[in-house]
Amino acid sequence: MKIIDGKATAAEIKSEIAKEVAEMIDIGKDVPHLAAILIGDDPASQTYVSGKEKSCKKVGFISSLYKFPADISEKELLKVVDFINKDDEVNGLIVQLPLPDHINVNKIIESIDPSKDVDGFHPLNVGKMVLNLPAYLPATPYGILQLFERYNIETVGKNCVILGRSNIVGTPISILMSRKAYPGNCTVTVCHSKTKNLEKICRTADILIAAIGSPEFVTADMVKKDAVVIDVGIHRVKSKETKSGYKLLGDVKFDEVSKKCSYITPVPGGVGPMTIVSLLKNTLKAAKKEVYK
Amino acid sequence: MKIIDGKATAAEIKSEIAKEVAEMIDIGKDVPHLAAILIGDDPASQTYVSGKEKSCKKVGFISSLYKFPADISEKELLKVVDFINKDDEVNGLIVQLPLPDHINVNKIIESIDPSKDVDGFHPLNVGKMVLNLPAYLPATPYGILQLFERYNIETVGKNCVILGRSNIVGTPISILMSRKAYPGNCTVTVCHSKTKNLEKICRTADILIAAIGSPEFVTADMVKKDAVVIDVGIHRVKSKETKSGYKLLGDVKFDEVSKKCSYITPVPGGVGPMTIVSLLKNTLKAAKKEVYK
Repeated sequence: MKIIDGKATAAEIKSEIAKEVAEMIDIGKDVPHLAAILIGDDPASQTYVSGKEKSCKKVGFISSLYKFPADISEKELLKVVDFINKDDEVNGLIVQLPLPDHINVNKIIESIDPSKDVDGFHPLNVGKMVLNLPAYLPATPYGILQLFERYNIETVGKNCVILGRSNIVGTPISILMSRKAYPGNCTVTVCHSKTKNLEKICRTADILIAAIGSPEFVTADMVKKDAVVIDVGIHRVKSKETKSGYKLLGDVKFDEVSKKCSYITPVPGGVGPMTIVSLLKNTLKAAKKEVYK
Repeated sequence: MKIIDGKATAAEIKSEIAKEVAEMIDIGKDVPHLAAILIGDDPASQTYVSGKEKSCKKVGFISSLYKFPADISEKELLKVVDFINKDDEVNGLIVQLPLPDHINVNKIIESIDPSKDVDGFHPLNVGKMVLNLPAYLPATPYGILQLFERYNIETVGKNCVILGRSNIVGTPISILMSRKAYPGNCTVTVCHSKTKNLEKICRTADILIAAIGSPEFVTADMVKKDAVVIDVGIHRVKSKETKSGYKLLGDVKFDEVSKKCSYITPVPGGVGPMTIVSLLKNTLKAAKKEVYK
């Protein structure tokens, strides 16, 4: 069994990006610039955004943060998005989710200029991804693809079972793993809350991607010997074993599954660190006009 | 075994649409107007377009046809699309495919105003479909959904196996059958040219959708007893049995599979007639501004 080290892979890719940014500076090009909008004071959202800012700085990107109180109106927020859309110095724009209930999240996402939508959440980018046209891929699925690539994991003709059908992970990764490309060309099955015989279906998987949002849901008896297991879940649960009183768990029961599979992503340090790296890669693509001319 | 009569269902839906159009006229509303662009003189394309025109007339829609020779330039064609986009009297616009090689088909599709893209081919509509937002669904998948509805076929929790991953059938129907809705909520597996043990996977299907483009590919030994079989294929093959010297076959070996399954769509007269009906439904939605305000 080999552990897929997302932390090390993310660090490797970040240093590649940093090198490219240094070269951009050398030839007098503007460095990539990512803008983030943060509404309200949700601690998790603040942590995510500050993590993204730190990563930007680490690779030499400019990052700017637009913070607003939770009672900002939808109209005001649309104005801010429009302002950043029109700012030629900004290459990428992300709006940290979730948004307060009085704001229509789809309306905000659709108001982002698709050429700056480095989260890959705008329906135009989702559609382009499905049609295999140049697009910003959503961060987590894109991160998973990069792990397959960096670890040279064969995917063609494999049975890939995906647990979960969310808009940001399950559904897009199912499309990407099915398409005629590497990584891809898998026979993909998507499972969800209505699936019958889920355990049996899991046991057919050469590649199992768990994004079901339930701690340690996947147990050893659900996994085929030598399967590749990708764990997208991250759950903070109470624990007597740690000083903090908490520990992080994935959707996979790591201790027992890791003994049976060929590759596995740990939690933390697996898929998680790759998500921010994907955002950086998309922002770099935006600056280089690789997706939209 | 019950035959899913697409021809009768399509006629039924057409008469419903015609009734609605008559009501629109009664209250002084403009009737829906579908414009089609036809390039070159491919006989199949001409047949399809004239079929669409006839169907429009039958339900009381206005239809207009823009015909151009095969050597029209991409630039000229973009101008025509732009002209129709701006014509407030036109609700829906379709460009008959395929286009000549010198024209970039993606560029043309992306130039269509998404609010008039009643074929559901524009990436914005594809993305909205994936995200479960209001969208024009592509015609063939939409037609299949309507058959499930009209025949009250249960889909929740069923294993649905799809043969083919094309942009216009396999991939979109896989997304629609998986999503949290009726018809939908299936556990969907998408098979294609790289799939191993395809026969075995087919035998797990409660619902089998064949869109693989190979005549009589699906045989009785690949089908579970009492499965629902949807045949999207249509192939004109030489035959000594008919006067014309040709007959139409689907992707499914009808004679043997029909004896084993619970429901089956015939070819012709199954999915085919539903495709035009979907286009009419989308055009009606466009006229009523149900998808885009």
